[in-house]
Amino acid sequence: MATYKAPLDEIGFVLFDVLGYETAVRPLPGFGEAGADLVRPALEEAGRLCEEVLLPLNRGGDEEGCRFENGVVRTPDGFKAAYDAFAAGGWSGLALDPAHRGQGLPRTLHFAVMEMICSANLAFGIYPGLSHGAADALHLHGTEDQKALYLPRLASGEWTGTMCLTEPQCGTDLGLIRTKAVPDGEGAYSVTGTKIFISCGEHDLADNILHLVLAKLPDAPAGTRGISLFLVPKVLVGDDGSLSERNGVRCGGIENKMGIHASATCTMHFDEAKGFLVGGAHGGMKAMFTMMNAARLAVAIQGLGVAETACQTAVAYAKERRQGRALSGAKEPEAAADPIIVHPDVRRMLLTMRSQVDAARVLACWTGMELDAATRHPDPERRKRADDFVALMTPILKAHLTDLGTECANTAMQVLGGHGYVREWGVEQLVRDARIAQIYEGTNGIQALDLVGRKLPQGTGRLLRRFFHPLDAFIKEHEADPCLAPMTGALKKAAERLRGATLTIARKGLSDPEEAGAAASDYLRLFALTAMAWAHAKTVVAVLPRAGEPFGQRKIALATFYMTKVLPETGALFARIMAGKGPVMGLEAEAF
Amino acid sequence: MATYKAPLDEIGFVLFDVLGYETAVRPLPGFGEAGADLVRPALEEAGRLCEEVLLPLNRGGDEEGCRFENGVVRTPDGFKAAYDAFAAGGWSGLALDPAHRGQGLPRTLHFAVMEMICSANLAFGIYPGLSHGAADALHLHGTEDQKALYLPRLASGEWTGTMCLTEPQCGTDLGLIRTKAVPDGEGAYSVTGTKIFISCGEHDLADNILHLVLAKLPDAPAGTRGISLFLVPKVLVGDDGSLSERNGVRCGGIENKMGIHASATCTMHFDEAKGFLVGGAHGGMKAMFTMMNAARLAVAIQGLGVAETACQTAVAYAKERRQGRALSGAKEPEAAADPIIVHPDVRRMLLTMRSQVDAARVLACWTGMELDAATRHPDPERRKRADDFVALMTPILKAHLTDLGTECANTAMQVLGGHGYVREWGVEQLVRDARIAQIYEGTNGIQALDLVGRKLPQGTGRLLRRFFHPLDAFIKEHEADPCLAPMTGALKKAAERLRGATLTIARKGLSDPEEAGAAASDYLRLFALTAMAWAHAKTVVAVLPRAGEPFGQRKIALATFYMTKVLPETGALFARIMAGKGPVMGLEAEAF
Repeated sequence: MATYKAPLDEIGFVLFDVLGYETAVRPLPGFGEAGADLVRPALEEAGRLCEEVLLPLNRGGDEEGCRFENGVVRTPDGFKAAYDAFAAGGWSGLALDPAHRGQGLPRTLHFAVMEMICSANLAFGIYPGLSHGAADALHLHGTEDQKALYLPRLASGEWTGTMCLTEPQCGTDLGLIRTKAVPDGEGAYSVTGTKIFISCGEHDLADNILHLVLAKLPDAPAGTRGISLFLVPKVLVGDDGSLSERNGVRCGGIENKMGIHASATCTMHFDEAKGFLVGGAHGGMKAMFTMMNAARLAVAIQGLGVAETACQTAVAYAKERRQGRALSGAKEPEAAADPIIVHPDVRRMLLTMRSQVDAARVLACWTGMELDAATRHPDPERRKRADDFVALMTPILKAHLTDLGTECANTAMQVLGGHGYVREWGVEQLVRDARIAQIYEGTNGIQALDLVGRKLPQGTGRLLRRFFHPLDAFIKEHEADPCLAPMTGALKKAAERLRGATLTIARKGLSDPEEAGAAASDYLRLFALTAMAWAHAKTVVAVLPRAGEPFGQRKIALATFYMTKVLPETGALFARIMAGKGPVMGLEAEAF
Repeated sequence: MATYKAPLDEIGFVLFDVLGYETAVRPLPGFGEAGADLVRPALEEAGRLCEEVLLPLNRGGDEEGCRFENGVVRTPDGFKAAYDAFAAGGWSGLALDPAHRGQGLPRTLHFAVMEMICSANLAFGIYPGLSHGAADALHLHGTEDQKALYLPRLASGEWTGTMCLTEPQCGTDLGLIRTKAVPDGEGAYSVTGTKIFISCGEHDLADNILHLVLAKLPDAPAGTRGISLFLVPKVLVGDDGSLSERNGVRCGGIENKMGIHASATCTMHFDEAKGFLVGGAHGGMKAMFTMMNAARLAVAIQGLGVAETACQTAVAYAKERRQGRALSGAKEPEAAADPIIVHPDVRRMLLTMRSQVDAARVLACWTGMELDAATRHPDPERRKRADDFVALMTPILKAHLTDLGTECANTAMQVLGGHGYVREWGVEQLVRDARIAQIYEGTNGIQALDLVGRKLPQGTGRLLRRFFHPLDAFIKEHEADPCLAPMTGALKKAAERLRGATLTIARKGLSDPEEAGAAASDYLRLFALTAMAWAHAKTVVAVLPRAGEPFGQRKIALATFYMTKVLPETGALFARIMAGKGPVMGLEAEAF
């Protein structure tokens, strides 16, 4: 089994010391009670659930997997009880609107809790993750009646949600959707079509499943402008919320896939199923993006969660496993060999993981806090700034943190060697499970295109200024401090590369979108590595008063490692971006 | 199922056009008949076996896996028949000594054949790969009687071989071995102990299995200097080669692992098994390294093989799958969408794979040719140079080509998106199968330590000169050619970085081995990327006369992509190496 202890101290440090939660989030309307005195015990409680309930189920869930039997999906042994405990603990509605039985707590807290859940059991975490996205979409785009009827049951966890987008002929290109919705003359719609790759499309954890389905009305214009969103419950619901008859939606099978075996990936057939329009006719893409953005941040957190577990497991193994001697002479001469953590190459792997995971958590929590500000802050200008920041960071976090999840799982496997490739330590499952996060809710390549194609030009670079202005101010504020000089120096260099790349892409991309497309993935990574460097620098600022303590020394050592051993990659990324589209587009398709 | 066509034209081009096989290998003693007129049909025949027999078994082999039943290992359906066809075709003994019924053909050809086998079915390829290593060890270190008795049956494929090194408490650190060998008074030894992670330790493909087992004699000095190598047949063999009784060796179970399910990874119990000393008493490490070096090159080829299949599958998908429109305007407006190969980010992924796979093949074949020269060349000085080159390249190829295998399998999955994560296209199996190659026969971190710790200082840099001198000569010869300037310029820059890093590591490492250890993995990658750049430049030189044809344009485009989009990573690696051990060794073990 993988090693995992909920990193409560670390999360608390990030929230309260690095990011100033008490002055940034607590003063927001409705969060007055959500201070450290509430947040810390809540995190402890969630951590306990993760360590004691979800983690022990993870391996069995993988081995047993979901089973598809006569149209029904059975989740692995123990998942139903764990889900009930999760719902009973109030975790389903943690950040949902109290007007509809949600707990109304900050997204920031929700992010931290989701991280721990995904660390302990990624396949489990997918179920409530999707419910949250569905609730967001209904909250923002549903009618008051829809909200009153459905949101309380999503908040309580009695029902779960899905996102039904993909069809056999279309994933990324939703304009190709063929699922049809025909008005039934009674204000509802008859939905017909087949959706594939639907996470949690069918299962036995909850009494009802609310499918949010993209489909086209009869008069729909071609392409994505003709897409509408429909709520299609698995079981139809009376006005009082009581369950009535089964709707015309059924699971046609589940996928045999590399990992997340305990999360059913379903083919869903809609056969004149009763559906309810959410948002306006042909307004489905907007509503879909609400769900999608929430889902993308949730998936980013999945990457972070797996990365943390991989890191902890590798460290535990490296301290326990004894092979060879330290190159500087035996560290424990009385034993037959030294623990492998003495070896520089093993340390390189562990520090590459840890230095990135810690910085990734800062970015994730920071974005969570801005998400809270974007919805709650009384000042509309501040809300707008926060919203811009979240919009900018969403593709970056989705791609980079899920890359990090896979990277850390693989690095952990390398630390464990053969013991990582076999099942025992749980690392091979992490590698298999983490991999999906780079793919679903828009592949990481699509995130990069979102960044260069939508976020970069938006408001003539307005979103970028939300990042660069405070970054410049941060560097200016701290660069004279000799204690911080190595951090600010490295950060400044990366920021200059990022700015240079941004200008080049913006300039070239204006006349030739292929130039932006060719640079997209490298640019996203350059952005992410720079943002992580900033996160490290902020961490060091926060920890300077404790620079003499082991905790402070550790943080400074991690930042130093990051700046000297990880951040240099920005130079290579910059060079690749500057090389332009020529080498990418030159070859004819036939010649591949 | 994965897409795979044996790349016969490409292999032929590398051997005959880029590397000059006809003048470099054919003139070697014993290879007079092994010219293009023999090699090309042999490759075709092997390609047919791979496409028609091994590839179709790959998915079923993964799904069914090996089964352990009452001490016996059953390979998946069809494997026995495929192995028989393989042996009947004479492939088992392709490069083995004709004095012992081998075909006596060049290693170069053997490498090319192994690549295709591993492309088609990696799990299958492990069986003959290990037999080859065992045959090498017996060939070089066995007595004449041992060779006469055992080699012909390995060459015919009637029997297979294993390498039994790892024990529960020791993998990398073989000095910790506990398996004992006691003289039985009749010239043989009684071997007792438990070995784990033994690939093909037990199976039903062949009548006998020859285990080559590391063990310690009663009077053995501590550590690796006290290790001896023993041949322990599964079934004891009469002087005439007839099988007699079962030996005291049995399989205790097989591992449940991430991939290569059709290759049994066994726990082997030796209980007073009869063993025969191979090489001198306490001379086991030397004999082991013979096997190990052969195995490391074989594993490098595994990485290359998987990378090729991943690349072919991704290209096939990218040409077939239609999503979205080219950013420059619809390429096929009559269809609902363009094939995704029009998208710059998809092309980036495909070219990153293809440009590296093609260069990796050049390096692998080149090393194969040097291996042939090292054993066959009449001039001892030339043999020595070749031997040095192979010794230098072995850890580089093992690590870099297996990294490439995993990288390409994952990149292919990213091209396929959700369709890559499910079983159908065979890509998720490639990801799971490829991953082991970075671990076994010495993790890639161990390869890096071998490079900086053994190969770099050997003969005060003699091995390095085998690389740098001809590289410098190559650059000098071609840098004035305006057609080659972009290639030689980029190559020269990378070579300068490599030389600078080499000098720094050599200088610092002399007084502080931890400095070398901290730089090892980055250095190996810097070396490999530079060597691949050289391979591209050599390819372009070979293809210049065809620069106007599609084939030539393709090769130049791939080299251009590599130089501008892949090679810049050398800058980041150089910066990391120069940052030294400080950031790696600073943190106390407890603080991780």
